[in-house]
Amino acid sequence: MKVEIIPVGTEILLGNIVDTNSSFLANQLSLLGIDLYFISTVGDNKERLVNTLRQAWTRADVLITTGGLGPTQGDISREAIAELVGEELKVDQKLWQELQSLLHRFPGKIPQVNVKQAQVIPSTQTIPNSMGTAPGWWVEKDGHIIIALPGPPDEMQLMWEESVLHRLQQMVTGATILSRTIKIFGLAEAAIDELLAPFLKLSNPTLATYIKPDGIHLRITAKASEKTKAEQMIAEKENSIRELLAPYIWGADNDTFESVIENLLEDKNLTLAVMESCTGGLLSNTVATCLESSTRFKGGWVACSDEAKTAFGIQPYIIERYGTESSEVAEAMAEVAHKNLAADIGIGIAGSIYADRRTAEVFIGLNGNKFKRVITRTYLGNRLRIKQRAVYSALFELKRTLLEEV
Amino acid sequence: MKVEIIPVGTEILLGNIVDTNSSFLANQLSLLGIDLYFISTVGDNKERLVNTLRQAWTRADVLITTGGLGPTQGDISREAIAELVGEELKVDQKLWQELQSLLHRFPGKIPQVNVKQAQVIPSTQTIPNSMGTAPGWWVEKDGHIIIALPGPPDEMQLMWEESVLHRLQQMVTGATILSRTIKIFGLAEAAIDELLAPFLKLSNPTLATYIKPDGIHLRITAKASEKTKAEQMIAEKENSIRELLAPYIWGADNDTFESVIENLLEDKNLTLAVMESCTGGLLSNTVATCLESSTRFKGGWVACSDEAKTAFGIQPYIIERYGTESSEVAEAMAEVAHKNLAADIGIGIAGSIYADRRTAEVFIGLNGNKFKRVITRTYLGNRLRIKQRAVYSALFELKRTLLEEV
Repeated sequence: MKVEIIPVGTEILLGNIVDTNSSFLANQLSLLGIDLYFISTVGDNKERLVNTLRQAWTRADVLITTGGLGPTQGDISREAIAELVGEELKVDQKLWQELQSLLHRFPGKIPQVNVKQAQVIPSTQTIPNSMGTAPGWWVEKDGHIIIALPGPPDEMQLMWEESVLHRLQQMVTGATILSRTIKIFGLAEAAIDELLAPFLKLSNPTLATYIKPDGIHLRITAKASEKTKAEQMIAEKENSIRELLAPYIWGADNDTFESVIENLLEDKNLTLAVMESCTGGLLSNTVATCLESSTRFKGGWVACSDEAKTAFGIQPYIIERYGTESSEVAEAMAEVAHKNLAADIGIGIAGSIYADRRTAEVFIGLNGNKFKRVITRTYLGNRLRIKQRAVYSALFELKRTLLEEV
Repeated sequence: MKVEIIPVGTEILLGNIVDTNSSFLANQLSLLGIDLYFISTVGDNKERLVNTLRQAWTRADVLITTGGLGPTQGDISREAIAELVGEELKVDQKLWQELQSLLHRFPGKIPQVNVKQAQVIPSTQTIPNSMGTAPGWWVEKDGHIIIALPGPPDEMQLMWEESVLHRLQQMVTGATILSRTIKIFGLAEAAIDELLAPFLKLSNPTLATYIKPDGIHLRITAKASEKTKAEQMIAEKENSIRELLAPYIWGADNDTFESVIENLLEDKNLTLAVMESCTGGLLSNTVATCLESSTRFKGGWVACSDEAKTAFGIQPYIIERYGTESSEVAEAMAEVAHKNLAADIGIGIAGSIYADRRTAEVFIGLNGNKFKRVITRTYLGNRLRIKQRAVYSALFELKRTLLEEV
C-alpha cells in the first residue's frame, strides 16, 4: 500500500506555520510498514489542490490531506475532493444540527460560515472530531481511499488515533516494523554515545538517540516478517541497554515524567506539595498536568521574591545567612511544602536564572517523614530550557527517592 | 539570490522529529525576498549528503544545512562540507580549548568525542553558539556560501538571529517584503473571517489568519520596491483593521501576553500575585517567564484541593455555599492573592478541567484596591488547551482592566 500526504495551506509554503502533521503521519506510516514516497505541500488554491490530488491518485492508493477543513473562505479541501471524485457537495442536516448544538455552548450567535463544515459528498464517511468543529472525511472511491483531516495538530492526531489508525492497520499486511523508546536523564548525549558505541552501528534493530527536553530518548526499531519476532529483537536489545544505563532510565514509550510520578505516588499512596522560586510555577504545572486536583498533588507556592518566601513560612534567618540562592533555602522550602499542606513529600526549588548568563545553578530539596536531601545542578541554555531541566531534575530525583527510600 | 535548505537527519525521514527549522528559515527567507525553490531533506549518510550538497551547489547560491553538527558518530555535516569544497578537516586548538572550558562547568570528565565539534576547514568562519556546544560554520568558496547550523531549533534560531540574518540582509537587494502581525483574543476565527471578508481577497497587501494558543494572529504582508512604500501599505491596512477589531487586539509582532503585561505593570508601577486551581501553576509560570523575580510578580499559590484553598486563606463557608468551581471562589482567590502578598493586583482562577469532557467552565477573578471583577468563560478542547486559554483569558482581562481602571 502506498500513501501520499498532501498538507494544504499557503501558511506552510510561506513558512508561517510548522508542518508537524507530516512528520507525525510519516512516523505512524513507517510503523505500519506503509510506503510513503511523496509529501506534496500545496497552498489554499482549489485548482492547484485538485491537480495535486489528481497526481497523487495516479501514484498512491491512499491520499491523506491535512488542513483546509475550517469554516473560512480559504478552506477548500472539501470542494477539491468533491471535484476530484466528481460528486456534489450538500449540507448534511444531521451534522449541521450537531455542529450547531456544539456552537450553542459558546456566547454569541453562530457564524453562518460554519455551515461549510457540515457539507459532505455522497461517498463521505465522516470522522468525528471530539476536540474541534471540523469533522474529517473518509472517502472510498474506485479502489482509492481519501482521508481528509483538519490542520490543528492536536485535533488531527486525536482523530488519527481514534478513527483512522486501526482502519489502516486492518488493511495492511507484510513486514512489521516496531519501535521502542527508552528515556534517559542525567547523562550527556556524548557519554551515551560512548557507552553505546557498539550498538549504534547495527542495522536491524537500529538504535538512534534524540535530545528532548526531558532527557535523551533511545529509539530501538526492528523490522521482521512477524510481530513476535520484531518484539523479541527489541526485547533483547532493550535488556542490553538497561544493563548499561539502568540508573539513568526513567521511562519508556509514552511515559512522561508526570505520568511516572503519578503512578509511583498512586502505588505508594503518597501526596505531594511543592514550593518553587526560579522555576516560576512550572513544577506545579507539570505535576498538575496528570494528577487530579484533590488527590495526589495538594498544591504549591511560587515564591519569586524573598518577601513571598517569608510570607510562605521560610525563616528569614536562613535567607540572610545562606542567601536566597542556596541549598539551605531549597531544603527549607521542601520542608515547608511538606509540612504546611500535610503532604507526604515536599519539593523545594531555589536558584536564579538570569537572562544574560549561559549557565545557572539550581538547588533542589526533597523532604519527607523519613528522608531529606538536597542536590545542586548546573544547567546550560536559555531561561526556558533551564526551567525545564530543573523541573525534570527534581522529578527524576523524586522518582529515585521514592524507589529507594519510601 | 537563490537558497537551498538541506535538513540533515535520518530522524526527519522516519518522522521521529519534526523539522521546524525549515519553516523558520522559509519564513525568514521570504521576508528577505530571497528565493527558496528546494528543501532537500537527507539522512545521516555521508555519501548521500555530499551528493545532495553537490546538486544544491548547481542550482543555488547559498546552501544552508541544519543538523549533523553534534559530537556523535552520526553527525557528518562537517565531513560532508569538507569533501564538497575539497578541504581538510583539522582540530582548531583555540576552539577546542573554549569548548573544554565550557564543558568543565559540568561534573564528570569531558567525553573525547566532543573534539569533533572543534574541527574546521581552512575556509570555515565559525558562528558562535551561545546556547550549546556545537559552533556553526560560514564557508565562502567559488562564489557560493555554505551555512551550517545545528539541529536543535532554539540554538539554530538564536545563531541565525545573532550571526547569519544581518550578513544575508546586507547581500540582498531588490524587492522588499514586510510583514506585520496583529494579535487578537476573544473572537472566533469564523467571526473574524466575516468581519474582514473584504480584506481577505486582496492580493497586495495580503491578509492571512492563523489560529494560535494565544488567540488569532492576523498577518499583513506587503511587497514593494522600497521599504518605506511597503511600510506605508501595511500601516494603512493595519489602521482599517484596528478600527474594526479594536477591543480584541492585545499585541503585535513579537509581543507575548507576558511581555505586554510586564510592560503595563512596569509603566504603572504595579505588582501582581496570583492564586490558581485548575490551571495548576501555568498562570504563575506564564507571568514568571518575563517578570524578574522580585519586582513585578510577587508570587503565587497553586490550590488544587479545597484543603489547600483553605490553608491559603479562602474562607471555608465560601467553598461550602457556592462550590469549589464558582465565581465566588475565584473572587475570593483574587482577593487573598491581592492582600496576602501586599500586591497591587490579585488574580484568581477557579474551575475544573476533566479529562473526559469536551468543554470546561472557568472562573477568573481580578482584585485591586479600586476594582474587582469576575468573568466566566467556556472552553473547548483537551486539558492543555483549556489551561492555556484560561491563562490567556485572565491576562487579556488584566490588560483590559489595567487600561480602563488603573
